This record gives sequence, C-alpha cells and structure tokens, in this order.
Amino acid sequence: MLRTLTSASVALGPRVAGWVRTMASHQLLVTPPEALLKPLSVPSRLLLGPGPSNLAPRVLAAGGLQMIGHMHKEMYQIMDEIKQGIQYVFQTRNRLTLAISGSGHSALEAALLNLLEPGDSFLVGANGIWGQRAVEIGERIGARTHAMIKDPGGHYTKQEVEEGLSQHKPVLLFLTHGESSSGVLQPLDGYGELCHRYQCLLLVDSVASLGGAPIHMDQQGIDVLYSGSQKVLNSPPGTALISFSDKAKNKIYTRKTKPYSFYLDMKWLANIWGCDDKPRMYHHTTPVISLFSLRESLALIAEEQGLENSWRRHRDVTAYLHGRLQGLGLQLFVKDPTLRLPTVTTIAVPAGYDWRDIVKYLIDHFSIEITGGLGPSLGKVLRIGLLGCNATRENVDRVIEALQEALQRCPRNKL
Amino acid sequence: MLRTLTSASVALGPRVAGWVRTMASHQLLVTPPEALLKPLSVPSRLLLGPGPSNLAPRVLAAGGLQMIGHMHKEMYQIMDEIKQGIQYVFQTRNRLTLAISGSGHSALEAALLNLLEPGDSFLVGANGIWGQRAVEIGERIGARTHAMIKDPGGHYTKQEVEEGLSQHKPVLLFLTHGESSSGVLQPLDGYGELCHRYQCLLLVDSVASLGGAPIHMDQQGIDVLYSGSQKVLNSPPGTALISFSDKAKNKIYTRKTKPYSFYLDMKWLANIWGCDDKPRMYHHTTPVISLFSLRESLALIAEEQGLENSWRRHRDVTAYLHGRLQGLGLQLFVKDPTLRLPTVTTIAVPAGYDWRDIVKYLIDHFSIEITGGLGPSLGKVLRIGLLGCNATRENVDRVIEALQEALQRCPRNKL
Ligand SMILES: Cc1ncc(COP(=O)(O)O)c(C=O)c1O
Ligand SMILES: Cc1ncc(COP(=O)(O)O)c(C=O)c1O
Repeated sequence: MLRTLTSASVALGPRVAGWVRTMASHQLLVTPPEALLKPLSVPSRLLLGPGPSNLAPRVLAAGGLQMIGHMHKEMYQIMDEIKQGIQYVFQTRNRLTLAISGSGHSALEAALLNLLEPGDSFLVGANGIWGQRAVEIGERIGARTHAMIKDPGGHYTKQEVEEGLSQHKPVLLFLTHGESSSGVLQPLDGYGELCHRYQCLLLVDSVASLGGAPIHMDQQGIDVLYSGSQKVLNSPPGTALISFSDKAKNKIYTRKTKPYSFYLDMKWLANIWGCDDKPRMYHHTTPVISLFSLRESLALIAEEQGLENSWRRHRDVTAYLHGRLQGLGLQLFVKDPTLRLPTVTTIAVPAGYDWRDIVKYLIDHFSIEITGGLGPSLGKVLRIGLLGCNATRENVDRVIEALQEALQRCPRNKL
Repeated sequence: MLRTLTSASVALGPRVAGWVRTMASHQLLVTPPEALLKPLSVPSRLLLGPGPSNLAPRVLAAGGLQMIGHMHKEMYQIMDEIKQGIQYVFQTRNRLTLAISGSGHSALEAALLNLLEPGDSFLVGANGIWGQRAVEIGERIGARTHAMIKDPGGHYTKQEVEEGLSQHKPVLLFLTHGESSSGVLQPLDGYGELCHRYQCLLLVDSVASLGGAPIHMDQQGIDVLYSGSQKVLNSPPGTALISFSDKAKNKIYTRKTKPYSFYLDMKWLANIWGCDDKPRMYHHTTPVISLFSLRESLALIAEEQGLENSWRRHRDVTAYLHGRLQGLGLQLFVKDPTLRLPTVTTIAVPAGYDWRDIVKYLIDHFSIEITGGLGPSLGKVLRIGLLGCNATRENVDRVIEALQEALQRCPRNKL
C-alpha cells in the first residue's frame, strides 16, 4: 500500500464537482457587514470599578502568544502550574483544584450543579446580588433553597448561620467572602467547623476578594472555594478558579444522578486537569490563551509579591482611599471598619446627586471607570475597586481628583 | 456633607487593627510553587489537527490588547459587530445571534438546555463523537433522546431522517455538518424543510465546518446553528457562535420551565447581546479579550477573503492534500468524495503502523500537530485539519514531507 512515495498531482474528480454543486446551490443573501470593515477600536481605560480590572503587563504579554494544542504535554504542564498556583492563592492542598472554562458565574454553577441533587436542602446567605444568584441557580436545579435575606451592607454572624443550619438541615451553605455589590467582607473563621458540626458543606465565593483579603481554605474548613480571573488576578475574564475538599469531592463522586451539565461535570473536569488517576481524555477545548494569562497572573502573585504582600498592599491602599474619600466628605457605605472589603469600596451616593452623572463624568472626562450599585445596592452606592496591579496610591490620587471635579461639576438636587 | 474638599490623610484606626488580626490568625501553609517561579514557556507549533488551529496575525494582535469594561459602550459596539459577523458567516438574518462565553460544547449545551424541556423527544444523528455528546447532554436534561447510530464515516440521507422523524416525533433533530471525528460532510439541503413538515426544529453543529464548507442557515431552514472560534476562524478557544430562528426562539420564550443553567440561559444572553428590546443588564462578565479576537476573526473573513473565497480556498487546498496523500499511497477514510469534509481530512491508519507513532513523530521531529481518531473513530484514522489561515499549499507540502518521513521511520508491523 505504501509502496510509491511520490509527490502526487491533484485529483480534482467528482469530489470537486460535488462541491461546486453545493456552492452554487445558494446565493449569499447576507453581505459582509460595514462595521467589520473598519479597524477594531479599543479605548484606553483605567478600570477602577469592581472588576474586570486592567491586565498586568506580564499577563498582557501572555495574551499575545500563539496557540498550542489544548492536549499537548506543554499545555498539561501549564495546567499543572495553574493548579499549584490556585492551591497557593487558596491556601489549600486539595487535589481537586482546577480552572473552569467560563466566568465566575460558571464556577458558581459548577459548584451547585455538581454538589446539589434535586431535593437537597441548600442554605444561602443572600446579602447582595451574589447570594441572589446562588438562590436562582439552586432553584433551577431543584434544590430546596432557603435564602437568609439581608439588606446590602449586612453580613452573617455564626449565630445566624447556626440558626439556619439547625432549621433547614442543608447539605450546603453559600457565603460570599467579598460581597462586591455592597462592599462587605464576610468573616470566615469558625464557619467551616460550624457547618461540619451540622453535616453541611461550606461553599464560599471569593471572586472579588481573592488575593486582596486573607483566605485560608484548609484552615478555615471551606469545602468549595471559587474565584474569578478578572479581579485581583488582573487576567482577562473567561476563566474561574475552583477547589473542592475531600468531603465535597466525596459528595460529588457518590451522587445518584448525573449533573445536568456535561460542560461543567466535575468528574470530567477533574480528569482533564489531571486530578484523578486516569489518563487525560478529551472533554472540551480549554481556553488555551486565557490559561496562559491565568498562569502568568498566578506566577505574579507567587513571585513578585507573595500572597501576604498582596493582602497588605490592598489593605493599605484601600485604607488610603477610604481616608481620601472621607476627606472629600463622602461616607463609606459599610459602617463597621472591620467589615469593609479591602478590594471594592462602596460609597453612599452623596445626597442630591444622581450616581449616574458621577460615573459618566469620570469615564467621559478621565477615562476612569467606577460604577454604581448592583442588584439590591443599585442606586444606594458608588463602587471603586482597587484590584491587583491597579491597587496603587497613584490610582487613588487619580480617582480622588476625578471625583472631586465630578462633585463640583455634576448637577445637585436634581432628584 | 460635601463641604470640605480637602486632600485627606489616612485614618488607620480600628479597621486596620481588624485586618491585622485576620491576617495574623493563620499562617501560610502552602508556599509559592517552584514551577511558577520559572518563566512561561510555550513551544511553536503548526497546528494541523482538527482544531484548535493557529491564530491569524490580526487575531494574535487583538489578544494582546488591554481590557475595557464588559459593559462599556465600546464593548457593546464590538459585540454588535460580532453579531453582524456571525450573521454573515452563518448567512442568516436571525436577530437572536450571539457568542457564548465558553467552548463549542457550551454552545451545544446552550442549545439543548434552552430548547429541550424534560420529557421532550429529541432525535440525534450519532455518526461520531459529536452526536454521542448531544445524546449525553439530552439525557442529562431528561429529554427522551433517540440516537440514530451509524459507524464513523456514515451520514444521514433524507429518507433516514424522515423515518426517525415519523417514528419518534421529536421536537428537535441534531445533525453535525462537519463531523470532524470521521471526516464526513453531512448534506443539509432540504433537511430543514423536512424537519418543519414534522413540526421538528433542526439543530446543526458547524464547529468544524463553518467558513470552510458552504452553509446557508436561512435558506437551508436550519433553526439553530452553532460553531466554535478555534477552527476556521483562527481565534483562541473560549467563545462559540450561535443563532436561533424565530421558530426556535419561540420555543425558548414559551417554555414552561426555566433552563437548568443560568449561565447559559438564552433570555439573559439575548439581553446582554442586545437581541431583545430591553436595556442591557449585567448577567456575567463576558470574555472581553477573546471577543476582541473573535471580532478580528470575523472581520478577516468579511474583509480579506469573503465567505465564498474562504470556502473555495479550503476546497482547493484540501483537494491538493487529498491528492498528495493518495500519492503517498494512503487511503482516505471517507470513500465518497462528495461527502469529504473540506476542513478536516481523515486517513485510514496505514496497515502495520501504530497511529500514535506517526502522530508523535510529526510533533517531535517537525513540531506539526496531526491527531488520531476520536470517540468511535479512535484507532481507525489519522486526522489532518487545514483550517483558516492554516489552509495553504505550503502547509500541505510541509505535512506531506513530514508524513513521508514518518512512514519511513516509524516501526511497521509492530501490532
Ligand atoms: C463576588 C462576586 N461573585 C461573582 C461574580 C460573578 O463573576 P462573573 O461576572 O465573572 O460571572 C462577581 C463578578 O463581579 C463577583 O464580584
Ligand atoms: C464538530 C465539532 N463539534 C463540537 C466540538 C466541540 O468543541 P469544543 O471542544 O470547543 O467544546 C468540536 C471540537 O473539536 C467539533 O469539531
């Protein structure tokens, strides 16, 4: 069969005839869109909202790299490095640690789809939009979902959690570490232990806090922790970090039904991320370039700064912001200083102003993004994020200068 | 309240004390991983497998851009351009056309999660791995899923489809246009009409064929069409294209239950992509940088080449590949030339060889990726993809030269 190794000429027989037929059978009805004929235009922005944040230079460089295959051994090496980086920033030794191919919401959904079966009792701390989203997803999955609703600005004491646990006997409790819509930092010490006393697993959202506020997954007894790439990590949105304790893993591996999602099925994801003992198989094509970026983000935090330095920097720079905001006569939305998130700051909308005017002023005149509230905090707050490489005193000075001008120029008592 | 606009000094009162307490309460147990302290290392590869493919230079440049907000007006403009680009490459005027924040599988899952309700009858052409995946997802959702199973290499005639339609009365039929695991191009003319006669919607996977083989969504009566970014479009994996006909949209908007997924809920996605008449609201953070790249991919096809040129180039270059492969004495896996996919070519594994040796030889000695089979075609075929900017005669010559050497050097009759 392989006898003649000649450089062959091309046989354009019946196959091409077939194609020509196919190609001729329909006319193009839709013409190339005008807008796509212009060059891509992207403005320069200082992203001081609650995220996404700007990309760190090293992350930016990784984004410009050429593709390799998602199943090449070099890619598996990079994925292993990402896993180790996540273990470091989460402070965990969990083997089931990986990145999801989607945004922060997809990690929340992955957690709930894999941990909950229809009819399971699910308890949710809903003190802002993220708890609302957990409720929404829990209900879609058919879990008996119990929301502990609080106004934005609130947090959950251990006593409150214990009441919920004893009343609802949930298999899973959801708490948001950095409640970025309200600016609250939820304390976590002792909550894992408490949950475990009630045979409940603890799921924590650290999308807006990871790298900016201390978290110790293993020591705090957190069973599932997830975060996003586009906040303190300064990576593009599109990947999310997640890790499962042995208890959580066990719940997944002993479930009776398959999760509704194949894309987010943790047994498959565990395999492609080398978290089980089987050879890696094809599941889906992972976002190779975004993973390059994520690897660089994690390297940055491991190498240049160290986790404790990163926590300290966010704490100090945000404290500086708080002082300067108060100097402008503005009021911080979260009253208790120990409950303020060191990454995203919420400011009570100053009396007489429309928050939209202020946000618009900053983007139009300074190309700086800050945002209003979100979900239950909409209309109540302005939000400033100092995330990762954006957490500098220089950026605080820039946003304060811009805010000062906005407060002078924007209409007052319009409302 | 806003009387004193002074440049304030920093108040480091109780809040910092609180943080210091938090920070001191736990030691770091996990140290920065060694592997992350080395620079990121990515080899240079010519990706001639079934995808992902190499990035086009213009796409590569977009990947290196800095972030803007996912809800900035400039981003909405880019998203609008992407929609128009998808309408062009799909040849559709459907308003509900957008990009999913995930891989090709997430688009399949989005289609099924939104179109099927538990108990719905779902008919699947399963002539390779992609149909198997559709079956897997359909079953997870609780649809009554009926697979029309064929060996790899097979396709579905209208008569076969009609039998399935009349027997199972499905609400949805799944077909794969470019069956990349077997190398088959499924004919589509007349299938939409046929489905509609049976009150069935037609869902088509064009992940591996879009831009390389003619498809005319509207004229062919396809109700849901999806594709990926990482094949002919030469974008990074991580986004997927999808569009819904009015009939399909109507099924989604009149369903009785909410889809199990919030992340992939088409009503929410329609809103953030500006496909409904409501103001855009926050749903999830879209993969901004990947969308920049996708926009550039679509611009390339609209601008430099035009869809018909792109189809022609894939046809011609792949015909050239086929001729050269036959010149090496190799046999194409798909016997009928009119059913051969003009993007991904399957070659019967030459007698006496282990396909793994050949694949490994090419990557080790030439840094060229080709792959073996996948799912039901595993062990049966070798696969060569000529996708987008990789579809050149020069690349054909390179892979043929490499294959020729591999065939001489790899062990024979080992099996
Ligand atoms: C605390 C928190 N959780 C979850 C999310 C959702 O992440 P994504 O928008 O990437 O889906 C965010 C995003 O802003 C967040 O701040
Ligand atoms: C025809 C076809 N459908 C679906 C997929 C799945 O896409 P992804 O790997 O991006 O999830 C692929 C990917 O190779 C494919 O070729």
